Amino acid sequence: MWDADAPYLAACRGERAQTPPVWFMRQAGRALPEYRKTKGTRNILDALRDPALTAELTMQPVRRLGVDAAILYSDIVAPVAAIGFGVEIRAGVGPVVDRPFRDEDDLVRLRPLVPEADCPWQAEAVRLLAAELKVPLIGFAGAPFTVASYLVEGGPSREQVRTRVLMRTRPDLWAALLDRLADLAVSSLRSQVQAGAAAVQLFDSWAGSLSAATYRRHVLPASRKVLEGLADLGVPRTHFGVGTGELLADMAGAGADVVGVDWRVPLDEAATRAPGTVLQGNLDPTVLLAGRDVVAAEVTAVLEAGRAAPAHVFNLGHGVLPEVDPDVLARVVDLVHAG
Amino acid sequence: MWDADAPYLAACRGERAQTPPVWFMRQAGRALPEYRKTKGTRNILDALRDPALTAELTMQPVRRLGVDAAILYSDIVAPVAAIGFGVEIRAGVGPVVDRPFRDEDDLVRLRPLVPEADCPWQAEAVRLLAAELKVPLIGFAGAPFTVASYLVEGGPSREQVRTRVLMRTRPDLWAALLDRLADLAVSSLRSQVQAGAAAVQLFDSWAGSLSAATYRRHVLPASRKVLEGLADLGVPRTHFGVGTGELLADMAGAGADVVGVDWRVPLDEAATRAPGTVLQGNLDPTVLLAGRDVVAAEVTAVLEAGRAAPAHVFNLGHGVLPEVDPDVLARVVDLVHAG
Repeated sequence: MWDADAPYLAACRGERAQTPPVWFMRQAGRALPEYRKTKGTRNILDALRDPALTAELTMQPVRRLGVDAAILYSDIVAPVAAIGFGVEIRAGVGPVVDRPFRDEDDLVRLRPLVPEADCPWQAEAVRLLAAELKVPLIGFAGAPFTVASYLVEGGPSREQVRTRVLMRTRPDLWAALLDRLADLAVSSLRSQVQAGAAAVQLFDSWAGSLSAATYRRHVLPASRKVLEGLADLGVPRTHFGVGTGELLADMAGAGADVVGVDWRVPLDEAATRAPGTVLQGNLDPTVLLAGRDVVAAEVTAVLEAGRAAPAHVFNLGHGVLPEVDPDVLARVVDLVHAG
Repeated sequence: MWDADAPYLAACRGERAQTPPVWFMRQAGRALPEYRKTKGTRNILDALRDPALTAELTMQPVRRLGVDAAILYSDIVAPVAAIGFGVEIRAGVGPVVDRPFRDEDDLVRLRPLVPEADCPWQAEAVRLLAAELKVPLIGFAGAPFTVASYLVEGGPSREQVRTRVLMRTRPDLWAALLDRLADLAVSSLRSQVQAGAAAVQLFDSWAGSLSAATYRRHVLPASRKVLEGLADLGVPRTHFGVGTGELLADMAGAGADVVGVDWRVPLDEAATRAPGTVLQGNLDPTVLLAGRDVVAAEVTAVLEAGRAAPAHVFNLGHGVLPEVDPDVLARVVDLVHAG
């Protein structure tokens, strides 16, 4: 079990330390040889049904890299898959939906999640991890908009056009869809925290395809429902998206303690857009494939810009790329800890 | 032939009129039944070899919609296709490259474009259009970064990861690639202007995947080479990208007279980021699929925000979606002209 004063939790509470804590989105992933070996060719949604495997994959990067937090190995479509919406993760593609969301008839396919019955393996994995980990475990869920985008588009898309059309042409149906997805995220995250997770991160990866006005009208209420639906649990809540430079203030205001920033907006600029909010980020993931000097210079730049925030959790601006050398990740951890 | 005082050209020069001129990116496209009928199942790269067909597709939206400008029907990979790099446009996918760009050996596959020999049909189409059109014709080219992203990725991608990796791991090779692509764009655009085009637009559609620092270092020099390479021709130059909220000042400073803005950044905010620059945009294309009242309200909002710029060219924030009703496009033109 970790300490309540662990650097990651202290930073999330806004306590500035000598050097920031660090973890990496998608740190449990294909960049690690032990991940590729342990997971093999198993589909992620199958792998998640095995609590010991989930726990092992979650712990691997903590062991190898010395990061300051673990994040539950999961996928943003895990809850909709668990209630039988009909979604699979196709290798090299991402989530693919059998029958995309179109109208009211599809709403009934989104029944409430009952974690003990629908995905007992998830809480079990969290319990295993809470017993073993020396650093805090972050719970994981997809935000309503980004999950909806997969259900509406039928799979990954560049700009979520069908989704953006649906919210405008059928605002009531859209709001009902997001409300159900918010309930799923709340159920999943509450279950994770009750089983021992010390914090949560809500991934609204594709919210950056929206203007602030559209986000406020069609997305923010559901994301707020998720984040505020966890308020009584007293755990830090991080709210993350890609390309969300125009949304940072709204994402902070949705009930987040920490806002994740991608590589497009320097952290000092982000600090002016979401003043008073702890920031997480934001090294460009592609930097880790460049030479040693480039990595060191860019890490330093992120650390310096991060001083403009009340506190800083060092991370990438998006997930670790599969081609990255784990030794480079470990070196980044050392650089961040050295300050 | 059009008038030198045509509203579109006046606005590009920074002259504010009672109401802004309007055209739509991808106005010659699948939203128009006459486009679908005329083009049939012909591949766009084949269609471009027929000057009469290109001219007809370019003129159709002018006839039907009453827009204030035509834009040459083309594709951003047309120049690399014309020099035989090996690229095709696959229906429902986009540009796909036979042998993606990897190293120095691929540089030699990017020889200079000789428009009279490699694509004489393009200048011929421009001449036909200059003789027939009553509104200005805008020349068309892809910017070096976005064209490079297709060559490097091998096809469309969400975040141009391989491309962003290449610029960091092989900065010299990357600079040489972009320099050749800049030369191709200059050759193509100069040929279009010399044949009669009254303006140009440089499409850096995917530049928004970069931070401003990365853009300045690895992309801006090549885009400036294109735009400044046209300076002596005296035609207005518009510089457009999607998700470029962090790049607007740099895109303006690259030698552009007009900067295109997508729907994420309101035009009054864009005017503070690129002060003194004429702005083009920025209605969310998905709005055109919503109801009449939503369209009218959103058009009004764009017109109002656009007053913050020295002058405004009304457009969408990205291309017309194929599902849009042409009558809605015509109504938007009327709304803009009514002010």
